[in-house]
Amino acid sequence: MVYLTRKAEFSASHYYHNPEFTPEENSRVFGKCNNPNGHGHNYTLEVTVKGDVDARSGFVVDLKQLKEIMNREVLDAMDHRFLNKEVPEFFTHIPTTENLSIAIWQRLATKLEKAHLHRVRVYETPDLFVDFYGEQ
Amino acid sequence: MVYLTRKAEFSASHYYHNPEFTPEENSRVFGKCNNPNGHGHNYTLEVTVKGDVDARSGFVVDLKQLKEIMNREVLDAMDHRFLNKEVPEFFTHIPTTENLSIAIWQRLATKLEKAHLHRVRVYETPDLFVDFYGEQ
Amino acid sequence: MVYLTRKAEFSASHYYHNPEFTPEENSRVFGKCNNPNGHGHNYTLEVTVKGDVDARSGFVVDLKQLKEIMNREVLDAMDHRFLNKEVPEFFTHIPTTENLSIAIWQRLATKLEKAHLHRVRVYETPDLFVDFYGEQ
Amino acid sequence: MVYLTRKAEFSASHYYHNPEFTPEENSRVFGKCNNPNGHGHNYTLEVTVKGDVDARSGFVVDLKQLKEIMNREVLDAMDHRFLNKEVPEFFTHIPTTENLSIAIWQRLATKLEKAHLHRVRVYETPDLFVDFYGEQ
Amino acid sequence: MVYLTRKAEFSASHYYHNPEFTPEENSRVFGKCNNPNGHGHNYTLEVTVKGDVDARSGFVVDLKQLKEIMNREVLDAMDHRFLNKEVPEFFTHIPTTENLSIAIWQRLATKLEKAHLHRVRVYETPDLFVDFYGEQ
Amino acid sequence: MVYLTRKAEFSASHYYHNPEFTPEENSRVFGKCNNPNGHGHNYTLEVTVKGDVDARSGFVVDLKQLKEIMNREVLDAMDHRFLNKEVPEFFTHIPTTENLSIAIWQRLATKLEKAHLHRVRVYETPDLFVDFYGEQ
Repeated sequence: MVYLTRKAEFSASHYYHNPEFTPEENSRVFGKCNNPNGHGHNYTLEVTVKGDVDARSGFVVDLKQLKEIMNREVLDAMDHRFLNKEVPEFFTHIPTTENLSIAIWQRLATKLEKAHLHRVRVYETPDLFVDFYGEQ
Repeated sequence: MVYLTRKAEFSASHYYHNPEFTPEENSRVFGKCNNPNGHGHNYTLEVTVKGDVDARSGFVVDLKQLKEIMNREVLDAMDHRFLNKEVPEFFTHIPTTENLSIAIWQRLATKLEKAHLHRVRVYETPDLFVDFYGEQ
Repeated sequence: MVYLTRKAEFSASHYYHNPEFTPEENSRVFGKCNNPNGHGHNYTLEVTVKGDVDARSGFVVDLKQLKEIMNREVLDAMDHRFLNKEVPEFFTHIPTTENLSIAIWQRLATKLEKAHLHRVRVYETPDLFVDFYGEQ
Repeated sequence: MVYLTRKAEFSASHYYHNPEFTPEENSRVFGKCNNPNGHGHNYTLEVTVKGDVDARSGFVVDLKQLKEIMNREVLDAMDHRFLNKEVPEFFTHIPTTENLSIAIWQRLATKLEKAHLHRVRVYETPDLFVDFYGEQ
Repeated sequence: MVYLTRKAEFSASHYYHNPEFTPEENSRVFGKCNNPNGHGHNYTLEVTVKGDVDARSGFVVDLKQLKEIMNREVLDAMDHRFLNKEVPEFFTHIPTTENLSIAIWQRLATKLEKAHLHRVRVYETPDLFVDFYGEQ
Repeated sequence: MVYLTRKAEFSASHYYHNPEFTPEENSRVFGKCNNPNGHGHNYTLEVTVKGDVDARSGFVVDLKQLKEIMNREVLDAMDHRFLNKEVPEFFTHIPTTENLSIAIWQRLATKLEKAHLHRVRVYETPDLFVDFYGEQ
């Protein structure tokens, strides 16, 4: 049983706003992230899969497939996008790093075949990241 | 004569669009950066000043002053902003990394006292950066 | 259940010495870290908290509060300090990276409210770090 | 109970080939990694040990011993080597990052004394790494 | 006049050997880099171009073209290759980082159009790099 | 003509104090760096030499010699030291990053043979560094 992690990067913008909050609450809770014009990040995504090593290939996962799945399910949908306006999960949820890691987990978990999704890590900046392991 | 460099980071969003271009030209020249909703980056700014070392302090520049100038002139204006909509230089110029490095130079060059501004470097991503030395 | 990690840095000096050791033992066990003048590091601290995502804010923890707690409990006490002489935990314990991670855990564990402290990681250099999960 | 991690780097070359595969299978499964001349990487190795902190030294492990063991068992054998031709484990196994992390675990697990080996992480590139915890 | 730098990475293997040296000289001058099986690196390439900013696009260089040229002239030829055996410049020259930076300069200098090649930097490891500015 | 840069790291402590200043001046100019117990950093040193590539070796400098000179002249003297108390240059000069880069230049400039010293860069933290080119 080994764990393999592949990184990828995407650039997106977002802002934080809860329509049920008063303007004062939005400002107090979200600070300058509440700016409706949005601001952006170079997100770094780490996807970890776990499984047994295939005796014939020495691989736990076909890296080309993993790359294609990450590109198709995540990067094509989120790179160079305004998350609040263009990614459906964030029409109703606030695109915090927490919710972003959960959304990416849900996009990937059923697409992998032999290997199992173990962890999704999302860095919003080099100094802030969130891990999600599918735990409810 | 020594050269001192201080780094800082800010997060902003932008998009690329020339109103004199046809939609086809905008799409061909700017690709997915032409998305009008904007996308974002964690920009890293490096500001280099040069000068003689003060014999009494051992400093080429007062770091507290340099930090204050960088915060006031650049970060307060650009961090968590949509560059095209909220930073005046980019009402008329496209906020490419090239133009961003020139705009930051112009904001800083006259504010430094004893030390001289030598270089502004702006990283849009870890793999792409622009240097401006004030050369016309 | 998500895990959020925030990084911070501080610069401190320390040295390793056990008063119950002979000088030879101190030299053999601690090598050049035994120099009583001290030497220093840029420590990188990673604090990981875990909890459920708040449905209204999208946050697992209030980042401003987490930053304030980390600043007040750790950075204000340790940044630009000689750990052996100025931080009480190290009047009686040797300020190894192991003991530093435990001391930081003890300073933070009771101060967090809704989220639970999951891990304290301390990098002494980019090539050496210690994790503490509160396990006895 | 703390977990201490030490990093080290080595440079090696390898290629991927299964003699039981047809040339077409080797090409399809391994792509450009199938080039028999080999290609290379700057591998980064992270070795994590766990244990109790020694009350007299403040250490979970003698770092000089850990460094010697990592050098003798791994770096002397693999640094500046062609893994397929010069490291016995890879005469019969394909030197994927998965198999490399397992081989390094097996070289280290019985050599450590008081502390227990917890994890071996091998980065093939900054964007791809494998973790092995000794799980069968 | 601005300077734009784009990074790329490639993995290759090489060894150092001068057929005019005696075996003793080769061993003394090149140390473990003389192993004829080769060893490898994740090379990082930085290509810097300089020029005026185009008033219509805000660009000093068309990044898609720069990427294509770097891919075609350098990465397609060198990535996943044994430099001594598969890259013609190194049939007769030793593939040191010095000679590699010169070879990459020569491959790129005449291919760029409006912008001028300013510098080629090649990192062999994170701790060793060479710059070439086309100076004879 | 190529430029080769080698990095090395050392850990040291220091504090800033001018005996000709009043306590108020020392506090105002140097802030928390004035703490006489000292604090520390993981310094990163980059040494750049320039010269022609030797046709027989492909090298601009013998890396083993460069490493030995850097170790003997800089690291053995400064690593795990309190700069103010143990490094003679700083008995009379304040150990700022500016003065440290000049001191290291002076220690290295006359020791190199065929290659010429081009630049000394010292990082005090990842966000602050000083370059010295030997300019008066």
